[in-house]
Amino acid sequence: MGFWKSLFSNPDTVSSSEKTKKEEETLDRRIGARADENRIVLSTDREIDLYDLEQLCDAVGWSRRPLHKVNKAIQHSFIVVSMWEVRGASKRLIGFARATSDCAFNATIWDVVIHPDSQSKGLGKALMKYLIKKLRREDISNITLFADAQVVEFYQRLGFIEDPEGIKGMFWYPD
Amino acid sequence: MGFWKSLFSNPDTVSSSEKTKKEEETLDRRIGARADENRIVLSTDREIDLYDLEQLCDAVGWSRRPLHKVNKAIQHSFIVVSMWEVRGASKRLIGFARATSDCAFNATIWDVVIHPDSQSKGLGKALMKYLIKKLRREDISNITLFADAQVVEFYQRLGFIEDPEGIKGMFWYPD
Repeated sequence: MGFWKSLFSNPDTVSSSEKTKKEEETLDRRIGARADENRIVLSTDREIDLYDLEQLCDAVGWSRRPLHKVNKAIQHSFIVVSMWEVRGASKRLIGFARATSDCAFNATIWDVVIHPDSQSKGLGKALMKYLIKKLRREDISNITLFADAQVVEFYQRLGFIEDPEGIKGMFWYPD
Repeated sequence: MGFWKSLFSNPDTVSSSEKTKKEEETLDRRIGARADENRIVLSTDREIDLYDLEQLCDAVGWSRRPLHKVNKAIQHSFIVVSMWEVRGASKRLIGFARATSDCAFNATIWDVVIHPDSQSKGLGKALMKYLIKKLRREDISNITLFADAQVVEFYQRLGFIEDPEGIKGMFWYPD
């Protein structure tokens, strides 16, 4: 019931035809949407069906991860954002992202994914703008991420800067 | 009392002359240290005097940050590590680092600092190894950080890899 609670009590609904407009405008439309309208809904509700999320990650070719760890990561993230395609009573998870944070200075964004069927429609941009807005509302000023080479330009268009002042992203992996 | 509780109940004490030896050895020494011995103590206790921490950050030239936000960041970090120089009953904060995490997959290390008087003695390496060990004990496999250009080599020597497979660290700042 987590999703529907989110959908009707505190949703951010975006008509897919209007997704490129200013977010404030799209938020205003959430009450007026007709039941048969194809809508895109953004939510910060963490009660996401883990199998829905796995299916979404499968669709973009990510390696499977233990669901109990995925659940733990979601519960311990600072913000979790999901994007849903809603038509009438049916809904489909089409996007996801989350961020870890110290709740004060820094946030790091992980697991940004849009279903291949929904890519190239501006939805990834809408998802990221929504996440950035939520982080800014919490007064987080240093928003970071680690971008695969093929999505660096996507994040640049959102205002992310690669290696600012020579700062390098570094990874440590177990042997 | 947080520090002393940590020091005597669950400390990781490193004799400064032995800091380059294997961590397991140094941990074994924590009970046997004499009261007049100059010791280096690592702790995960979060009860750090914020003015001590500010003084440490001042010493390396970092910009000052509001203490209430520093405190919030410490409380919401996944792990906080402090390093102390202890002689008899006196102690001095000489090192600090912390990490945010989703408690499952990823951790990001922030605010790594060693007092200038204590640099070039292997203490930064000891601090980082201790932090990595703590993260690994929590089954975190993806340990990340954003390194200023001048410390990239330091982290490389610890096993951190810069931009693995073309992954880029990216930052978003408010306008």
